[in-house]
Amino acid sequence: MHQFLRVGARAANQLRAVKIQRGYTMHAEGSVLIEFGNTKVLCTASVEEKVPAHKKGSGQGWVTAEYGMLPRATHSRNEREAARGKQSGRTQEIQRLIGRALRSVFDLSLLGERTIHLDCDVLQADGGTRTAAITGAFVAAQDAVTQLLMQGKLQLSPIRDHVAAISVGIVDGTPLLDLEYTEDSACDTDMNVVMTGAGQFVEVQGTAEGAAFSRREMDALLALAEQGISDLVALQKISLLNK
Amino acid sequence: MHQFLRVGARAANQLRAVKIQRGYTMHAEGSVLIEFGNTKVLCTASVEEKVPAHKKGSGQGWVTAEYGMLPRATHSRNEREAARGKQSGRTQEIQRLIGRALRSVFDLSLLGERTIHLDCDVLQADGGTRTAAITGAFVAAQDAVTQLLMQGKLQLSPIRDHVAAISVGIVDGTPLLDLEYTEDSACDTDMNVVMTGAGQFVEVQGTAEGAAFSRREMDALLALAEQGISDLVALQKISLLNK
Amino acid sequence: MHQFLRVGARAANQLRAVKIQRGYTMHAEGSVLIEFGNTKVLCTASVEEKVPAHKKGSGQGWVTAEYGMLPRATHSRNEREAARGKQSGRTQEIQRLIGRALRSVFDLSLLGERTIHLDCDVLQADGGTRTAAITGAFVAAQDAVTQLLMQGKLQLSPIRDHVAAISVGIVDGTPLLDLEYTEDSACDTDMNVVMTGAGQFVEVQGTAEGAAFSRREMDALLALAEQGISDLVALQKISLLNK
Amino acid sequence: MHQFLRVGARAANQLRAVKIQRGYTMHAEGSVLIEFGNTKVLCTASVEEKVPAHKKGSGQGWVTAEYGMLPRATHSRNEREAARGKQSGRTQEIQRLIGRALRSVFDLSLLGERTIHLDCDVLQADGGTRTAAITGAFVAAQDAVTQLLMQGKLQLSPIRDHVAAISVGIVDGTPLLDLEYTEDSACDTDMNVVMTGAGQFVEVQGTAEGAAFSRREMDALLALAEQGISDLVALQKISLLNK
Amino acid sequence: MHQFLRVGARAANQLRAVKIQRGYTMHAEGSVLIEFGNTKVLCTASVEEKVPAHKKGSGQGWVTAEYGMLPRATHSRNEREAARGKQSGRTQEIQRLIGRALRSVFDLSLLGERTIHLDCDVLQADGGTRTAAITGAFVAAQDAVTQLLMQGKLQLSPIRDHVAAISVGIVDGTPLLDLEYTEDSACDTDMNVVMTGAGQFVEVQGTAEGAAFSRREMDALLALAEQGISDLVALQKISLLNK
Amino acid sequence: MHQFLRVGARAANQLRAVKIQRGYTMHAEGSVLIEFGNTKVLCTASVEEKVPAHKKGSGQGWVTAEYGMLPRATHSRNEREAARGKQSGRTQEIQRLIGRALRSVFDLSLLGERTIHLDCDVLQADGGTRTAAITGAFVAAQDAVTQLLMQGKLQLSPIRDHVAAISVGIVDGTPLLDLEYTEDSACDTDMNVVMTGAGQFVEVQGTAEGAAFSRREMDALLALAEQGISDLVALQKISLLNK
Repeated sequence: MHQFLRVGARAANQLRAVKIQRGYTMHAEGSVLIEFGNTKVLCTASVEEKVPAHKKGSGQGWVTAEYGMLPRATHSRNEREAARGKQSGRTQEIQRLIGRALRSVFDLSLLGERTIHLDCDVLQADGGTRTAAITGAFVAAQDAVTQLLMQGKLQLSPIRDHVAAISVGIVDGTPLLDLEYTEDSACDTDMNVVMTGAGQFVEVQGTAEGAAFSRREMDALLALAEQGISDLVALQKISLLNK
Repeated sequence: MHQFLRVGARAANQLRAVKIQRGYTMHAEGSVLIEFGNTKVLCTASVEEKVPAHKKGSGQGWVTAEYGMLPRATHSRNEREAARGKQSGRTQEIQRLIGRALRSVFDLSLLGERTIHLDCDVLQADGGTRTAAITGAFVAAQDAVTQLLMQGKLQLSPIRDHVAAISVGIVDGTPLLDLEYTEDSACDTDMNVVMTGAGQFVEVQGTAEGAAFSRREMDALLALAEQGISDLVALQKISLLNK
Repeated sequence: MHQFLRVGARAANQLRAVKIQRGYTMHAEGSVLIEFGNTKVLCTASVEEKVPAHKKGSGQGWVTAEYGMLPRATHSRNEREAARGKQSGRTQEIQRLIGRALRSVFDLSLLGERTIHLDCDVLQADGGTRTAAITGAFVAAQDAVTQLLMQGKLQLSPIRDHVAAISVGIVDGTPLLDLEYTEDSACDTDMNVVMTGAGQFVEVQGTAEGAAFSRREMDALLALAEQGISDLVALQKISLLNK
Repeated sequence: MHQFLRVGARAANQLRAVKIQRGYTMHAEGSVLIEFGNTKVLCTASVEEKVPAHKKGSGQGWVTAEYGMLPRATHSRNEREAARGKQSGRTQEIQRLIGRALRSVFDLSLLGERTIHLDCDVLQADGGTRTAAITGAFVAAQDAVTQLLMQGKLQLSPIRDHVAAISVGIVDGTPLLDLEYTEDSACDTDMNVVMTGAGQFVEVQGTAEGAAFSRREMDALLALAEQGISDLVALQKISLLNK
Repeated sequence: MHQFLRVGARAANQLRAVKIQRGYTMHAEGSVLIEFGNTKVLCTASVEEKVPAHKKGSGQGWVTAEYGMLPRATHSRNEREAARGKQSGRTQEIQRLIGRALRSVFDLSLLGERTIHLDCDVLQADGGTRTAAITGAFVAAQDAVTQLLMQGKLQLSPIRDHVAAISVGIVDGTPLLDLEYTEDSACDTDMNVVMTGAGQFVEVQGTAEGAAFSRREMDALLALAEQGISDLVALQKISLLNK
Repeated sequence: MHQFLRVGARAANQLRAVKIQRGYTMHAEGSVLIEFGNTKVLCTASVEEKVPAHKKGSGQGWVTAEYGMLPRATHSRNEREAARGKQSGRTQEIQRLIGRALRSVFDLSLLGERTIHLDCDVLQADGGTRTAAITGAFVAAQDAVTQLLMQGKLQLSPIRDHVAAISVGIVDGTPLLDLEYTEDSACDTDMNVVMTGAGQFVEVQGTAEGAAFSRREMDALLALAEQGISDLVALQKISLLNK
């Protein structure tokens, strides 16, 4: 079978170079710059001592996310959403996904009536911004929770497991892990997968951009994703060992 | 294994009663009222003889969708989005999904430089509104295309295959087809699947609302969905035979 | 005098076929599909156990209305107001009118501190949508009030009388009752009249679209409207006898 | 019959003191400060040498109006609409009314492809702002048209007749002409009437604020309005004689 | 040195004719029409017996300003900000400036927990609208405070000093005081200066519109402004002597 | 005289550590991370081959700026402007200032009909974000222009001089250069100064936050600013020597 050639001789099942830099900015309770190759996302976790209306009086906390992209994070400049006066459908879809992904590993009762805001801002985009955002936001959230534990505001961690995400797709018939921008533009099928450290699925979002895909192709993609996410969780753990 | 009991003794792999009523309103080129049990969605297809900016001069057409819900389609009244001045993230996510689903079976070059607008408005909601919308919008689009063919505006149909959608989910450990509202609220995992008439996947959107799900559970859900969509495509075909 | 010829040999002082279908959708406390010929409006009444700020602590309730039109209710597709981010001046004018009309027959003190929201959504438009909306909203409101009485939440009905509405206009010099779209487009003078069951006026909104109109013409229009509304009130009563 | 006592011993059929000051500001083609008692509205007419999209290429012009109120034109301060980010339903309803009223006396073909914008801004409100606005806007429009004629841009005036407006209402059973704020607040029925110089009706908008009104009451109100508008037209003529 | 010739043989260091008319409208606690030559700004002061969130419970009051311009206050018509749905950056910049200027002479503790809203609406613009607004708003605020003192709501005036503002600029190399529109359009450097009655600076906002300016030029401009503001404060005092 | 003690024993007339990192992100024509101590601003310059409407057909180009702050750039989290649906007055004021500052050293005729967009996004805030933004945006703009020259799209550089900015203020009676956040919060007078490489003033914006300031104090502040900006221009030059 013809094999699609990746930049830098990257193997089909190989992640791009992943870097996780904690404490990237100084004010946030958690602040992580995560890089998947040229994709760079700044993920901050901010603790707020109150909850939105639908959680008031419930004894439970809340975890929510917002996503943004600097106007020139991309090849050509995008209009600033604040200037246009509204967030695009794409932005809202991504930030809802990040929020659900993070909440899937939180025991909101253990968090108490407080909110963790995860802000994921793309400084530079080269494909996979939402999966980098989820993977980095987990580390930022962990740092914020550690601080709450050390301050005695929490007795037990509300975080039950790791969560990470990766994209997979089929380009020219080849299933590939962790698509960069040129691959993403060329692919027929694009799938974002979110999984826990225990290897369970949290989200699977597969889309046929060109031709529809078969069950066999989906199985191949899911297998790639399982392996990639397992690698990412290991990298999260290494990063969190420091300091 | 304990088996979740469904309303009306419905089997786990059974669709609700599906009704497809064509020509429901008189102005639109295609107008379909589709019912999945108590869920009722009015899907209209409107032909416009121009395309959005990103398709101008391309020789290609465009297919796009909008989704809405009447304020009292639901148990308690929802604020009207037009009054609030913006569409919710949920609404945008759904209408983007419907648009992608329909475009997946269109050859936009054969459509010519015109747009088909699919408006899916929920008159009554009881779970599965987005899957009913996709399934009904396909029939409305087919009627609109038939009219273009009969008017001689098109020589060949740009529609390459059927497309339909169904929800599946795991409730109390039981995988179920076509969730109604009470099931949807209770389920741990919820998955919306869009497939073509040929049985290929167009979209798979699975979300763990409660516990994350295993690969084996996903396989069970996908199998249920394949069968349900095959039934829906058959119903679309029967409906289109009339008149 | 030359006599304008109406579709279906309808007499100048004759209503179109009026149908009032109660219980059209299942969630709302009142849900009425009303048809004036090809004009179809879904009117729902939703009871909310609180009042807006200006009524808080007053012991009085509130009755308010919202109006919408599905994008393809009309000959050519209209942009969705939720997508455009605001309601048009026309929409706001109509919903304010419906609200005033309904409040005119309500004793708000007897309603208690609760709100009845009347949502009037046009499924298909062929002239006279606002008058159909008022006439149908009254029936929906009546059903909602009946439910409150049966639930023991109200002891006495706050509804003091019927209210209904009709359009009248002068086309080619002929005063006509209940204008359909082609007549509405052609008319020189267009008047919407709202009256109570007792035959008193609640609203009179006459507009010279072409030539200004004389006092004599206005008298002819008001006489037509009085008769038409009397017929509509009779139809409301028949409809409410059922069940 | 008990007779409602008006401020300053004004008769039931008497206008408040009306002042029309032309050339009130220097930039506009027409600029009129009109006063109905304590109600003061600045009406400017601005000529723009283009038309909105729906008139392009038609050879016809357009006349349109906007209405605003300074935040402290009223007893207590109103939030500024520009700060709130949208015009209220009331504002839109009034400016649509002013626009229709003025267009009713314009032959848009004679205006050529240009627009006259009528801006009516209330400096001080004491009831009757919309009727003062229409009456003053006519004079401003006349001045703008005179300028176009003198500049040779128009050969024939597109203005076919005068137009003016007044409010009438029933307070404590007494029909009154030209309601001031305290009367307006107390009235059962409130009617705004727009008429041409020839005594034909352009708009009749009657609303039962309290009890619904009878046909006999409406006749009394219309008679009052006819007389009041005839007086206003005479005042417009006198004002336009000067300079 | 070449000397720029001003309209009406005005000297370089001479203010335009300044008129301050108190009690211009009747509802506001302070209402001042101020004119700097052809520039006319209506400044009203409205007292509200509550404070914004950031002052609640502080025992302190608040002073804030809003600025607007009637659409035809200018040579050609400007779109109405309420219709466009937002205030321009320029409007916001000016109203923030007016608010800061007025607060600089207020002891907010002596005001008590109430707000003074200063609305500055330009009826006619010919340069210097923001400086006229500040100068007039001070007089309106003074009138509102006087009323609070007379009503016994305040024991001591919270106003510590006068505040006024003027523009200065360099046109064709000549430093000029109080620029009118044609001068403002032609000038290289434009500076707005706000000072207290005691001759201290509150705001200095200098902008090089054309060539950048030297320290020596700035000194000349500041000297002009000091003198002009001293004249304006004298005029405020004379105006406040009346009644 | 008592001397205010600065963090890190910084002298009153000393800048914080300034770092200018070019090529910080890869897509933009110019991309600079500038740091004034803990304040970090990412400034990108994007070239677009068209101009806004007011420059079309003029043969001239345009230079414009937008400013943003990541939600957790500050001590406590700020609501995201894109989510709130509008830019604050402060944001608009700052981006207008940056745009004017940069245009002051551009010969727009030499730029040709193209636009340079300067996006200044604050990653971490500790006072002085607007002055860092101007200083960094100049370097980004220079890089973008150099690229246009090397591509042969420009023959001559449209940049006539350097431009840089610094804040100065009086804290506890001591005039200080380059205020950090704690100083900015404590200061009585705050002034932002923009100057060219030639030592001419482009903008002076001084505000009395507490007590008004004297002419002598202003002179001291201007002297400090002149020296600080001269240092910043030297740093810009060194930074631009590399590569």
